[in-house]
Amino acid sequence: MPIVTVRALEGRTVEQKRKLAKDITDAVVKNFKVEPDRVTVNFFDMPKQNVARAGKLVIDQ
Amino acid sequence: MPIVTVRALEGRTVEQKRKLAKDITDAVVKNFKVEPDRVTVNFFDMPKQNVARAGKLVIDQ
Amino acid sequence: MPIVTVRALEGRTVEQKRKLAKDITDAVVKNFKVEPDRVTVNFFDMPKQNVARAGKLVIDQ
Amino acid sequence: MPIVTVRALEGRTVEQKRKLAKDITDAVVKNFKVEPDRVTVNFFDMPKQNVARAGKLVIDQ
Amino acid sequence: MPIVTVRALEGRTVEQKRKLAKDITDAVVKNFKVEPDRVTVNFFDMPKQNVARAGKLVIDQ
Amino acid sequence: MPIVTVRALEGRTVEQKRKLAKDITDAVVKNFKVEPDRVTVNFFDMPKQNVARAGKLVIDQ
Repeated sequence: MPIVTVRALEGRTVEQKRKLAKDITDAVVKNFKVEPDRVTVNFFDMPKQNVARAGKLVIDQ
Repeated sequence: MPIVTVRALEGRTVEQKRKLAKDITDAVVKNFKVEPDRVTVNFFDMPKQNVARAGKLVIDQ
Repeated sequence: MPIVTVRALEGRTVEQKRKLAKDITDAVVKNFKVEPDRVTVNFFDMPKQNVARAGKLVIDQ
Repeated sequence: MPIVTVRALEGRTVEQKRKLAKDITDAVVKNFKVEPDRVTVNFFDMPKQNVARAGKLVIDQ
Repeated sequence: MPIVTVRALEGRTVEQKRKLAKDITDAVVKNFKVEPDRVTVNFFDMPKQNVARAGKLVIDQ
Repeated sequence: MPIVTVRALEGRTVEQKRKLAKDITDAVVKNFKVEPDRVTVNFFDMPKQNVARAGKLVIDQ
């Protein structure tokens, strides 16, 4: 703890996740005053057919 | 928000998700009085080897 | 399974949740062809100070 | 309910999940006094590029 | 990681959670071959008005 | 989407969440190239009796 979970549409590169994980961890450490090795960040890559907004799947928008 | 997450065993078609996402969104809009574009629905397709009921994986039932 | 999780801002009444749980369950049964007693719906009431959109907490919007 | 969700790095075998699902279910039944068929266990296999600790992805550690 | 999340109806005592957290951690360590201090267990106590089965809230069953 | 969920031990102030939500949103916008108003951040304040590490509840450590 803290555990940070990011759900985003699939298609992001490893490099994008690498940098975001770093930035989020820095933000948690700074604001919540915890040691970095306590912070876990995990990503769920959501297929576009598995997410809907306003009742429509992303693949239909 | 609202964010609705559906975990179900894998094997549903895109058409099934399309219709369920629509029906769930309509239900949230009607009952919780929110604008449709505020509603996110997302699906997790669970492999049958990743779900257990009564201590047994679905693939073993 | 299926398990449906609804995160929404706090303030909804029990009656609203009662009706939404019923409507969502009906929608899952109809579209995913499962028995009703397999469907679990659960709600998380999110405090307005615990949700942010566009970088601002809901209490600040 | 109870619903137990296990997020772990990918690479575990079906046999490992089979045994862990059984052991967790037994532990829930014993300690929370519920019927076994009420207990759902589900696993998320996390790719090593989707998990970070201390700001670094597992693939970089 | 592993991160184990338990959602159960509210009403369990701290002692019940204490024992279940221990048993689950032991099970994860044994089956997934990880160090104990890598294992996080967290509980969500679900109010009975926030959970529905078969379309009915637990408080109505 | 993206949806960012932060689980942390209870006790953080609104001001800490305000700043962290802002910093996380900025990080997501920068690295994942999305519009800010697409980003939702939500916090779960975990009671110390509901989190265990290495098989021991935080209140026992």
